[in-house]
Amino acid sequence: MAFEPTSIKALTFDVFGTVVDWRSSIIREGEAVGQAHKLSVDWGKFADAWRGLYQPMMDRVRTGELPWTRLDDLHRMALDRLLKDFAIMGLSEAQIDDLNRAWHRLDPWPDVVAGLTRLRRKYILATLSNGNVALIVNMARRAGLPWDAVLGAEVARHYKPQREAYLTTADLLGLRPEQCLMVAAHNGDLAKASEAGLRTAFVPRPKEHGPHQTKDVKPAQAWDVVADSFLDLATRLGC
Amino acid sequence: MAFEPTSIKALTFDVFGTVVDWRSSIIREGEAVGQAHKLSVDWGKFADAWRGLYQPMMDRVRTGELPWTRLDDLHRMALDRLLKDFAIMGLSEAQIDDLNRAWHRLDPWPDVVAGLTRLRRKYILATLSNGNVALIVNMARRAGLPWDAVLGAEVARHYKPQREAYLTTADLLGLRPEQCLMVAAHNGDLAKASEAGLRTAFVPRPKEHGPHQTKDVKPAQAWDVVADSFLDLATRLGC
Repeated sequence: MAFEPTSIKALTFDVFGTVVDWRSSIIREGEAVGQAHKLSVDWGKFADAWRGLYQPMMDRVRTGELPWTRLDDLHRMALDRLLKDFAIMGLSEAQIDDLNRAWHRLDPWPDVVAGLTRLRRKYILATLSNGNVALIVNMARRAGLPWDAVLGAEVARHYKPQREAYLTTADLLGLRPEQCLMVAAHNGDLAKASEAGLRTAFVPRPKEHGPHQTKDVKPAQAWDVVADSFLDLATRLGC
Repeated sequence: MAFEPTSIKALTFDVFGTVVDWRSSIIREGEAVGQAHKLSVDWGKFADAWRGLYQPMMDRVRTGELPWTRLDDLHRMALDRLLKDFAIMGLSEAQIDDLNRAWHRLDPWPDVVAGLTRLRRKYILATLSNGNVALIVNMARRAGLPWDAVLGAEVARHYKPQREAYLTTADLLGLRPEQCLMVAAHNGDLAKASEAGLRTAFVPRPKEHGPHQTKDVKPAQAWDVVADSFLDLATRLGC
């Protein structure tokens, strides 16, 4: 069906990678820990390894091997493994917990706050992230992200790309799926959102995985909207 | 236990009556419909009757007579009955739906926006209302209510004062119940919040039910905080 911006009532956002630059932020947080504890760690590799455990950890929930487990706790299970792999020693429980909460302190891409502010004039803005509610709330307060609602995986108790995550979010907004525009930097997320009936906007983040990224630098399908930043998205949606 | 404001991380708010003046707002919406359709209705009685069906309707869900039903749909079931009782005729389906969404357009009490703005500097602000997410989101966008998260009954799939509504909201915020301060104009709500382990703040709204209100004009127990407005609450919490 042809895309009509006027049929859209809410924008639902992927967060990690699309809204925030998790890699640079985790490196920043790691370097601070490294300096304080005189650690010699390649924090770029550490960030990539932590994110690398993201899908495998969620898969344990998706398959039912684990009961519903919020992302904070999956991040912590992964972190406990990485502390061994990277021979990071001497951190107290409170310090490990604080490092785990680095994911609550991710910085947005430079266009995000201004773009969201424009988009919010016309559309309801909701998160549709695998991040748990507390993580997304703390991130939003620190970064000034003007969400109208924090929804997604935890309230649906299903991790994306499971269909329930998309459909529950639309339902909680009181909307039909096709009244929601899923905004993501990941073709796979948009493909599953589209299968669930949402409309799609691709905003590539070619530096998400660092300087040598090859994945998700271009749209893999004819998404409803393709924009090169949230500001461009606002312009394309008439905001 | 003694109350320490520093142990509180989030304020969780009752909305109808505590944050917004539903009665005056429903009367305003009713009068507009009445003028447009040349109806002779006592809109004060109409507002009271609509609100009067609120607890009985939720009871049908609490007892399991009805499966989970969002408040918008309970409001509509009540409205359909009231249209007959008040002999309101000639409204189209779209007009009835719009009148039902009057609950999305309730006005805040005069101290609310300024009070929440001060409180938000220090505390996470979440709704813990029986209103469904879409209702609370639309109300917030119209009135400028700066919620960090819209939680409560719908995400818990339990209507207050069922314990799950309070506990699920605290859990989604990543907090223990005692790190949440329930703010309400209703002694009954605070009693159940307290039983669930939350701390309590009473802000009376002596005009909620109109000029002749006798219920909930005073604290019925020694709540952790008693304030006469959200501005006073902010001052008492050091914001």
